[in-house]
Amino acid sequence: MFVEENMPKVAVIMGSQSDWPTMQETTNIFDDLNIDYEVHIVSAHRTPERMISFAQNARENGFGIIIAGAGGAAHLPGMVAAATTLPVIGVPIQSKALNGMDSLLSIVQMPSGVPVATVAIGTAGAKNAAYLAAQILGVTDSHIAQAITDFRKQQADAVIESEAHLND
Amino acid sequence: MFVEENMPKVAVIMGSQSDWPTMQETTNIFDDLNIDYEVHIVSAHRTPERMISFAQNARENGFGIIIAGAGGAAHLPGMVAAATTLPVIGVPIQSKALNGMDSLLSIVQMPSGVPVATVAIGTAGAKNAAYLAAQILGVTDSHIAQAITDFRKQQADAVIESEAHLND
Amino acid sequence: MFVEENMPKVAVIMGSQSDWPTMQETTNIFDDLNIDYEVHIVSAHRTPERMISFAQNARENGFGIIIAGAGGAAHLPGMVAAATTLPVIGVPIQSKALNGMDSLLSIVQMPSGVPVATVAIGTAGAKNAAYLAAQILGVTDSHIAQAITDFRKQQADAVIESEAHLND
Amino acid sequence: MFVEENMPKVAVIMGSQSDWPTMQETTNIFDDLNIDYEVHIVSAHRTPERMISFAQNARENGFGIIIAGAGGAAHLPGMVAAATTLPVIGVPIQSKALNGMDSLLSIVQMPSGVPVATVAIGTAGAKNAAYLAAQILGVTDSHIAQAITDFRKQQADAVIESEAHLND
Amino acid sequence: MFVEENMPKVAVIMGSQSDWPTMQETTNIFDDLNIDYEVHIVSAHRTPERMISFAQNARENGFGIIIAGAGGAAHLPGMVAAATTLPVIGVPIQSKALNGMDSLLSIVQMPSGVPVATVAIGTAGAKNAAYLAAQILGVTDSHIAQAITDFRKQQADAVIESEAHLND
Amino acid sequence: MFVEENMPKVAVIMGSQSDWPTMQETTNIFDDLNIDYEVHIVSAHRTPERMISFAQNARENGFGIIIAGAGGAAHLPGMVAAATTLPVIGVPIQSKALNGMDSLLSIVQMPSGVPVATVAIGTAGAKNAAYLAAQILGVTDSHIAQAITDFRKQQADAVIESEAHLND
Amino acid sequence: MFVEENMPKVAVIMGSQSDWPTMQETTNIFDDLNIDYEVHIVSAHRTPERMISFAQNARENGFGIIIAGAGGAAHLPGMVAAATTLPVIGVPIQSKALNGMDSLLSIVQMPSGVPVATVAIGTAGAKNAAYLAAQILGVTDSHIAQAITDFRKQQADAVIESEAHLND
Amino acid sequence: MFVEENMPKVAVIMGSQSDWPTMQETTNIFDDLNIDYEVHIVSAHRTPERMISFAQNARENGFGIIIAGAGGAAHLPGMVAAATTLPVIGVPIQSKALNGMDSLLSIVQMPSGVPVATVAIGTAGAKNAAYLAAQILGVTDSHIAQAITDFRKQQADAVIESEAHLND
Repeated sequence: MFVEENMPKVAVIMGSQSDWPTMQETTNIFDDLNIDYEVHIVSAHRTPERMISFAQNARENGFGIIIAGAGGAAHLPGMVAAATTLPVIGVPIQSKALNGMDSLLSIVQMPSGVPVATVAIGTAGAKNAAYLAAQILGVTDSHIAQAITDFRKQQADAVIESEAHLND
Repeated sequence: MFVEENMPKVAVIMGSQSDWPTMQETTNIFDDLNIDYEVHIVSAHRTPERMISFAQNARENGFGIIIAGAGGAAHLPGMVAAATTLPVIGVPIQSKALNGMDSLLSIVQMPSGVPVATVAIGTAGAKNAAYLAAQILGVTDSHIAQAITDFRKQQADAVIESEAHLND
Repeated sequence: MFVEENMPKVAVIMGSQSDWPTMQETTNIFDDLNIDYEVHIVSAHRTPERMISFAQNARENGFGIIIAGAGGAAHLPGMVAAATTLPVIGVPIQSKALNGMDSLLSIVQMPSGVPVATVAIGTAGAKNAAYLAAQILGVTDSHIAQAITDFRKQQADAVIESEAHLND
Repeated sequence: MFVEENMPKVAVIMGSQSDWPTMQETTNIFDDLNIDYEVHIVSAHRTPERMISFAQNARENGFGIIIAGAGGAAHLPGMVAAATTLPVIGVPIQSKALNGMDSLLSIVQMPSGVPVATVAIGTAGAKNAAYLAAQILGVTDSHIAQAITDFRKQQADAVIESEAHLND
Repeated sequence: MFVEENMPKVAVIMGSQSDWPTMQETTNIFDDLNIDYEVHIVSAHRTPERMISFAQNARENGFGIIIAGAGGAAHLPGMVAAATTLPVIGVPIQSKALNGMDSLLSIVQMPSGVPVATVAIGTAGAKNAAYLAAQILGVTDSHIAQAITDFRKQQADAVIESEAHLND
Repeated sequence: MFVEENMPKVAVIMGSQSDWPTMQETTNIFDDLNIDYEVHIVSAHRTPERMISFAQNARENGFGIIIAGAGGAAHLPGMVAAATTLPVIGVPIQSKALNGMDSLLSIVQMPSGVPVATVAIGTAGAKNAAYLAAQILGVTDSHIAQAITDFRKQQADAVIESEAHLND
Repeated sequence: MFVEENMPKVAVIMGSQSDWPTMQETTNIFDDLNIDYEVHIVSAHRTPERMISFAQNARENGFGIIIAGAGGAAHLPGMVAAATTLPVIGVPIQSKALNGMDSLLSIVQMPSGVPVATVAIGTAGAKNAAYLAAQILGVTDSHIAQAITDFRKQQADAVIESEAHLND
Repeated sequence: MFVEENMPKVAVIMGSQSDWPTMQETTNIFDDLNIDYEVHIVSAHRTPERMISFAQNARENGFGIIIAGAGGAAHLPGMVAAATTLPVIGVPIQSKALNGMDSLLSIVQMPSGVPVATVAIGTAGAKNAAYLAAQILGVTDSHIAQAITDFRKQQADAVIESEAHLND
């Protein structure tokens, strides 16, 4: 995999291996878009110091963005955001009892001063976390901006094709 | 204020001074019940390392229970719980837009292994955090158990008096 | 099973046999942690006097903590709390129509003076009820405090192992 | 106040004096409809035994229906229903944080075998508790049935009058 | 089936045949309790005049109580209540998208003057509609009051048996 | 007021005079757009037969559209829709306890075969009911279509003006 | 298929082919009622300009009503409504995590000046979109008005038949 | 105001002047952080073409990030996101009836391919939109990264000061 030199990596983290089926949607898109990333399991509740340490060192370890998936009380994105000044994208995992409404509120309702860029509940959100990260990198990286533009074009074409298919 | 020797103190913590009007309901009851406590402002999002450190050292600093009030994303109780094995009681502060439903879900929906003992939203919860702490201390401390028993008796008497008043 | 002499037992109660698959998660952890407990079916709505009597006598019957699981209107934890000064932990069972949101609100929104220590909806909550009880006992019992510390260490190790597994 | 001989009385109970402004809407209607009632403050959480005892003796004390107002965890209607076979009408008091949604779910979501006849949140519900009680008594009491019929006629006339007023 | 002479019948109505699996829980209990009933499909939205007419004539047709099951917008119970002075019990059917929360609010939030006695969402509510009707009839009918008392005793015994079973 | 000959009138109905402050927003817009209307108070629950009769005769009385505002259980729009084949627009009035969420669900969740065209909760919805009615009439009436086009132009101009004002 | 000359067509649009199983319920009814329609996939988010253009040209392309199905953020109905003065009917598709509550609120809570006629979540709504469109066309088209009247008659007959079937 | 040369500007847009009191919180922070921005009123529903055009030209007009505040149906952030590949931050304005829950769901539940970085409801979100934008710019701009680091330090100091103040 060729990766733009000096382009910061994206960290894709989650609190538990059970979040991986959702978060794999994120990394699949990074594979398509040729964006460098690392995957880590970093639990806010089970390994709090390691989480803080991960977040504090993220920038100097070459990360530019952190994507954190979490469900239920879902403290991981907000706590990572508290320990870094990198942008943090939060993915609310669809939880068992409350379908991710708990995850969403816990992630999005951050107090003033420590934002988390929250995306949709579940797999749509996991995919959009990747696209959002790409768009953030694309503010200053014209290759990625172009890749997103190309992807948007494909999306639009797919809509038009699907209509043709429907009216067959 | 006379305090039972060797009885562990209760820590009453909150993320922001704006939570104090609610959490003062907790300490008022400790004053009544003659239970030793300390008040600290310990923000999960603004002082994450200090929060972890506070929680990790709480037991050796003489605390037996931690009461944490938080609103909105409300990560403080759960994060403190992650860094101590003391029982942690979470008070969901009534938030502005969602009336504390966000606070409640963020505090109560903790993953397996890291419980937070959650009480009601707002001032009723703040009071009950104090009573719950007293009841926990009362498992092994007969003075406090008796104080709770006395308080319950007063509550019951007040109900009966209020009925007499109503039917006047 | 060896049990610490004089350590109070935990009562694990529920309103109906249909709650047992959830509440068994609680007792499994007590088995692991070597904590003494009893299981009872005590319905607030079908056997109200027996419930009151159970709660009133719990302390003298050697219990130190009561864990009550309930779904829907879920009055059991709160009513038991009203008839004892022991700490009561409430587990909101995931209900059929409303997924446990009704159970959660009925358990957590207790009025001032009668707290219920509420944990998460469903099996995560049932497990956390056990850990919370252990942490409460661990305030004064150093063996149990150590057992919780060991368990937390295992949890942290499992997170790190799962990451290694993921990146294979 | 003339009252039909042998007609059972209605008990109007509430957990706290703070519920009286709402529940007074109930008794005002009983005054209008000439239905006999008593008002009691009977707290499920502060006086559980007295509540059970009140409910168990209600029928032999001449009550035919019990109306119970409660807010938040709102266990009173359901617990009274558990200790009597008289019909129990539950009025969800509008609570501070959750506007009575907690009260409503705690009252209405009763398990099979112990129904509570639930009415609307707040004052509309308090009024309707009175009308519902009157309609229940009116199943066998033709005077009350007629009084309800007359009231409905007045309501209908008031609608028509208000339209005339609007189009003036 | 022997039925007490002169005891009013119960009408069990629903808006659609698809509600029958739920509402059959109601009639099964009437069969057990030996209470006379009729089942009708009476749609508020598809046969509004027939519904009004059914409700207006219910009392003279020998009905004492009307039980109405409805889902979604769920207007049937409230509209029937508007056209009769008999007590109307509303059963919120568990709806597809919103799990009966829409049904519940549409049934319970009736305006002042036209109450609907609302029970729990789904089958628990359908059963409780029958028990509530029996308790209403039991205000003046000692046979039914006794049958309910017997049923409550069985429920209590079943709880105690289930505990014995659990601890085997 | 000049009104297009033969253009059907719009009926603006509500269940209670207390809904008038909201529904007056509807008629103000009809005054602006020069659309003929009548206002009636027609209660589903207090005058059910009159409501059915109103709806059944609406078309022959010269109405083309019915706008019905209702709060809480909010049966009026759906019941009117059941008794006419004219399009019915439902306005969910903002209710006291649940802020109109009950009104919204009761109005919008209609069963197949009897639609209600639902607009936003409260005054925005009351205004939009008028605009929607105008757009419906504008399908075949070019004067009204033009009036809506002009209004949209004014709205757009107001946005641009407000920006200029903001950046002053 | 015979279609009334000059009768405007209905546009049935959706954002994605995955909405087709729901929206096909709409077109099936148009087939039954002999109403002319076209189906298009027009995504607000993937083809925004094409969507605006579709809406702006809809009237001159012979459409009289636009039905738009959308789920989740569900911007399609509101954005189409912003770019046409034809009446727009919005169908909230039942979404995965939040069961269509997100779709409903995004569609119905439109600001003043740009209404969307919102129907129920899911297939009931998709069917009702068709009936509502027919009722709108029926304001001025007596053939369609009659077809709706006939359909309503069939619905009523089906209710009565289903009752006979139930009581067999 | 000195601004880093070549640093992209931030666009702060909203649908209506009534959103300005909330969105001014965003621009106040940009003033503090010395970040260049422009404010525009760009309504999705009242000026859809202008909105699309604004979004399509944003990058070439020197913008690097778009912050969009919107309430209720709140389509602005998602529609702008559909027409640009710049990162879009959505601020859910606290709406009147539903307190911003509608705004939140409409903004965050975007479909795959078109993300909106969503922040908290109301003023906390408006502030965090500014901080998030600064953090995004800070990925590649070390001056802004340092400014955020300094701000975080001030926040932490303020917490510690407030504790001192509390314990005075």
